[in-house]
Amino acid sequence: MLAIGIGAGDPDHLTLQAVEALGRTDVVFVIDKGDEKDDLRALREEILRRHRPDGGYRLVEAADLPRERSGPVSADADAYRDVVVDWQDRRAALYRDLLTANLADDECGAFLVWGDPSLYDGTLRLLDGVFSRMPDPDGWRVESVPGISSVAALAAAHRLILNRVGRPVLITTGRRIEGGLPDDVDDVVVMLDGRAAFSTLPPEQSAALHVYWGAYLGTTDELLVSGPLDQVCEQIVAARDEARERKGWIMDTYLLRRNAGER
Amino acid sequence: MLAIGIGAGDPDHLTLQAVEALGRTDVVFVIDKGDEKDDLRALREEILRRHRPDGGYRLVEAADLPRERSGPVSADADAYRDVVVDWQDRRAALYRDLLTANLADDECGAFLVWGDPSLYDGTLRLLDGVFSRMPDPDGWRVESVPGISSVAALAAAHRLILNRVGRPVLITTGRRIEGGLPDDVDDVVVMLDGRAAFSTLPPEQSAALHVYWGAYLGTTDELLVSGPLDQVCEQIVAARDEARERKGWIMDTYLLRRNAGER
Repeated sequence: MLAIGIGAGDPDHLTLQAVEALGRTDVVFVIDKGDEKDDLRALREEILRRHRPDGGYRLVEAADLPRERSGPVSADADAYRDVVVDWQDRRAALYRDLLTANLADDECGAFLVWGDPSLYDGTLRLLDGVFSRMPDPDGWRVESVPGISSVAALAAAHRLILNRVGRPVLITTGRRIEGGLPDDVDDVVVMLDGRAAFSTLPPEQSAALHVYWGAYLGTTDELLVSGPLDQVCEQIVAARDEARERKGWIMDTYLLRRNAGER
Repeated sequence: MLAIGIGAGDPDHLTLQAVEALGRTDVVFVIDKGDEKDDLRALREEILRRHRPDGGYRLVEAADLPRERSGPVSADADAYRDVVVDWQDRRAALYRDLLTANLADDECGAFLVWGDPSLYDGTLRLLDGVFSRMPDPDGWRVESVPGISSVAALAAAHRLILNRVGRPVLITTGRRIEGGLPDDVDDVVVMLDGRAAFSTLPPEQSAALHVYWGAYLGTTDELLVSGPLDQVCEQIVAARDEARERKGWIMDTYLLRRNAGER
């Protein structure tokens, strides 16, 4: 089973390794997250059209198991994790049946993963869970094909080096920076931020931060804003709201950098 | 001017975007770091042979300006940064002359960057310094082409997701973790570790850590070791020493993970 990173949105993010992997795929499994992401579906179809013009593969789509969102989402990180883990367990059972029903013994299946399978994507975890529920867990093996992550795409779009000389970079979530950045790192990449966490930072932090923001990276809809956080915060909030309204979804990421004048 | 990420060592890490960028390159600039890295030179030549079989480009090599290593390298991060910054300044002047002498007005130059230009690579910083020393700084512009970093290659080789659910990942240097990991992050990727910093951690930290180590990632020399840090620490130290002895250089990276049983 392949987990193929297909990049952050530009079909040319595909690596030669990913092209080769697509070439030996018999069944492409697609997790259908609902019609709000028609753009992503179109991009995936373009990639398959370009690199499998023979059409010699089967496409198997499954409606994704929605995460329960009955109550307000807890801001508590542990409670959030429990909800996600439970959802992942139920999903694993669903996909076990899907794989068993659609993949012959000698066939190669593939999941296409946006960005890189190693960063804030659950496919490898899902497949671990699926394989452990198979009658022959040892007969299954996943091969991970690395891809251009939205982090790399963000940096390229702004022509950034993410780290300063000899210094660290933290990659984290919007939830984790609500109310304040950690003190011990000056370069923080934020992903999965549905609630504009950059606008919740204390003023003494904001004043020292530069932000490099990007949405729909690598696509024709790409949006980029950068500048001192204090000065461009409202502009980014407005750009996000407008884009989400217009397109029905948004995928964005950003770097927060303390003391941007230092190398 | 292009800074093209060419991946961590596997020529198939190249993206379609990088192939396209190579295709419109007139002059490939190469920073020659000495003959200890003949493998890297061979890989670069293979990439050019494969993707520019026309040979319609010029290759310009410059001996790199060595960093001064007269005294013992300071473990102090600020002093280390000063040394690096000074070296970068002198290098920028050298490369300004190289670009001016070898690139006509309408020509496209490219630097090929191992991994991704956004992570622990100085090419974009060098080019900023070079352009600012040009008589017409605004006439120069760099385009960064993202690549598969050694971090992504490490994760793929071990089939890892770097983050746990909703949790952060720190990317840092060997120097920064000497003597101990930070307390507030459980997944730490370490790069540029010449001195086996993983073996300097306090026992109470080591005992809770799993390590996923890789060297020469994506090449036929790839080495992988993983396991509880306490159990495989000596094995990794020995593998590094042996490989460095045999090949004359090593490039490795690793993930340290606390409480690896948690998702």
